[in-house]
Amino acid sequence: MIYLDHAAATPVCEAALTAMKPYLREKFFNPSAAYLPAKEVSREYEEAKGVIAHAIGARAGDLVMTAGATEANNLAFTVLGSNDKVLVLTTEHDSVRQLALGGGSDGEFGDADRQNRTRFLHEFIEVDEMGRVRLDDLQAKMDDSVKLVSVALVNNELGTIQPLAEVAEIIRKVRYDRMRRGVKQPIYLHTDASQAINLMNVNVARLGVDLLTMNAAKVYGPKGVGALYAGHEVHLAPISVGGGQERGLRAGTENVPGVIGFAAAMNEAKEHLNGNRKKYAKWKMILLNNLRDYELINKGKTLDNFLVVSFPGLDAERLIYLLEEREVYVATGAACAASKGERSHVLTAIHLSAREIAGSLRITLGETNNETQILAAAEIINEVVMAERQRVKASYLEGKNG
Amino acid sequence: MIYLDHAAATPVCEAALTAMKPYLREKFFNPSAAYLPAKEVSREYEEAKGVIAHAIGARAGDLVMTAGATEANNLAFTVLGSNDKVLVLTTEHDSVRQLALGGGSDGEFGDADRQNRTRFLHEFIEVDEMGRVRLDDLQAKMDDSVKLVSVALVNNELGTIQPLAEVAEIIRKVRYDRMRRGVKQPIYLHTDASQAINLMNVNVARLGVDLLTMNAAKVYGPKGVGALYAGHEVHLAPISVGGGQERGLRAGTENVPGVIGFAAAMNEAKEHLNGNRKKYAKWKMILLNNLRDYELINKGKTLDNFLVVSFPGLDAERLIYLLEEREVYVATGAACAASKGERSHVLTAIHLSAREIAGSLRITLGETNNETQILAAAEIINEVVMAERQRVKASYLEGKNG
Repeated sequence: MIYLDHAAATPVCEAALTAMKPYLREKFFNPSAAYLPAKEVSREYEEAKGVIAHAIGARAGDLVMTAGATEANNLAFTVLGSNDKVLVLTTEHDSVRQLALGGGSDGEFGDADRQNRTRFLHEFIEVDEMGRVRLDDLQAKMDDSVKLVSVALVNNELGTIQPLAEVAEIIRKVRYDRMRRGVKQPIYLHTDASQAINLMNVNVARLGVDLLTMNAAKVYGPKGVGALYAGHEVHLAPISVGGGQERGLRAGTENVPGVIGFAAAMNEAKEHLNGNRKKYAKWKMILLNNLRDYELINKGKTLDNFLVVSFPGLDAERLIYLLEEREVYVATGAACAASKGERSHVLTAIHLSAREIAGSLRITLGETNNETQILAAAEIINEVVMAERQRVKASYLEGKNG
Repeated sequence: MIYLDHAAATPVCEAALTAMKPYLREKFFNPSAAYLPAKEVSREYEEAKGVIAHAIGARAGDLVMTAGATEANNLAFTVLGSNDKVLVLTTEHDSVRQLALGGGSDGEFGDADRQNRTRFLHEFIEVDEMGRVRLDDLQAKMDDSVKLVSVALVNNELGTIQPLAEVAEIIRKVRYDRMRRGVKQPIYLHTDASQAINLMNVNVARLGVDLLTMNAAKVYGPKGVGALYAGHEVHLAPISVGGGQERGLRAGTENVPGVIGFAAAMNEAKEHLNGNRKKYAKWKMILLNNLRDYELINKGKTLDNFLVVSFPGLDAERLIYLLEEREVYVATGAACAASKGERSHVLTAIHLSAREIAGSLRITLGETNNETQILAAAEIINEVVMAERQRVKASYLEGKNG
């Protein structure tokens, strides 16, 4: 098996698994219980939060642990009231796009949904042909109702690294300008850093973000665990109420093994960051040099393990199926979008032609790979693409002759 | 160690651990991905949901998987709009009580909270001295605005089994009466069955409930996993939006290992249900016969592994501390309430005196115990109670003489 879809899911690394194990069977106590072993678990849980927070230059108390990135994004959007506006990129992950659209915008849920969900204002920000935020468009769409700007640090389909510091600079100026004019509306910058934290040195202060989403499942930690960093000045509303855990913002018994595993995985990622970046950059170069007849889609500054290539004229869905038969696993776009059979809104946003979009594969490298695999993958993809080109050509000629 | 707090947390059973393992490292795929191994994982995930659903007489499609009972309860309450009323017992777990109160009712979160959260109407239903719902009070507080009645099948502090079928019968009559009068407001019965599913044959049709909360962490499954059963006629609103998972009601990559583990734990529970009930009933009897100078608090029909006893005149917090030194771990009430140092609202609701409440211990038996432990625990509790009574008496006399 050659798995080239690490942006969709990663296995739990040995370090995380080892760290989690004692908390499943022996140290299983409820962290809120009154006796000593439970208090120890509670302390170790807080320490693990501290490790995760430290990895982004924050403290344990700045994090709200969640069941994943989607929940963290949902929590971030609770800063919005009904008169507030949010600006998001056209290329954001569905968990942010659907939030911006007010959730359940397809009318599936009817009245209950409309009653329960705050309907705030939103606008989409354009990206350039490399998928980068268009700062001029951001400036143009900025007005005094904007309370939140949400820009993923790394796009999940292209691997594009956003110039977040420049976005933060614009927001700082807006903040200053509002203060000067006596406009009381605050403005916050949120970033979903799920794809980024594995291979970038992320620091909330340096990035200038007020809210940051993390996801254990993308960094070789367990599924079902995430976190939202929130600066002290940000007022979130609880997305689930109950026993008062996580500063009352996210009730429910703490997922101790999950958070312990997340911390161990973050430690691993930090420790091997530079080595992994070099390794993936090298493998990406091998693919670029060995693949044939492709068009590079994700140009510009991208995460080292992301490669998006198109084989115009071919159907990527069919390629995935043919590659699957050779045990090479790649993606067309976000897994959750793919499962609904929708055309990628990301590839549409960067103005690719329908032919280019239809033939696009996302390859994301990771810890299950090695160099031999990468060379083999290039060969197999070439073979599959060549055979498919011949089949398409033959069927075209047949159609012409028939 | 003698752990007598299984209502607060349970270790993950071997069966669940074994079932989960392959999904952490080998079958780690994103269930939404397009290639075959991911589709297999997706199918196995659905099968696991089917197992969990089957345990309560439902089907996979009736369940929304969540990160635990609290989230499931929060999701159940999305049926409520701003003109609807919910009736809950005074003795409900904080995750339901706080929901009924509208969440963050302490004003901690200010404007953001008020903006985002639907403020529906609520009323609390009284319980009798055994903690059972007072059906006359339920009848009296019923009006046409009531859309939801939430009654935990088993109370988490007392172990009281509620006469849910009788509640369902009242609701059926209300439904019929509304239909007859042309009142369009629907009415649903929700039960948090977190404590119950481990030791009761739970069947949604037989119980007559429309919504039912489950929690893996209370049945020797993993923490951070739960489910809400919802009948087809119930319109929920999504509590987190994004990639459209779980029928669009609860977005985020599925916690595959967690749900697989939950299913395995449910299977174990079902298989050993009768044996476990007999075992716990016997152990409870041993405690009742061997403990000295106590008052039985949870009389009436209670879950077999729940025992609440009071040592009036003593301070349960101190007893917990003294028992902890002997490695016997018990609780005063719900772990999350205990951690906030609040007096139990449950024990207050059943009209115990302050002295009785202050001296109350909750003992919940489970799979980490054996008969030798139970006998030893009774002995240790007796010793600790006796010593503490003497200390209290001595210090009283000292005070009198001083």
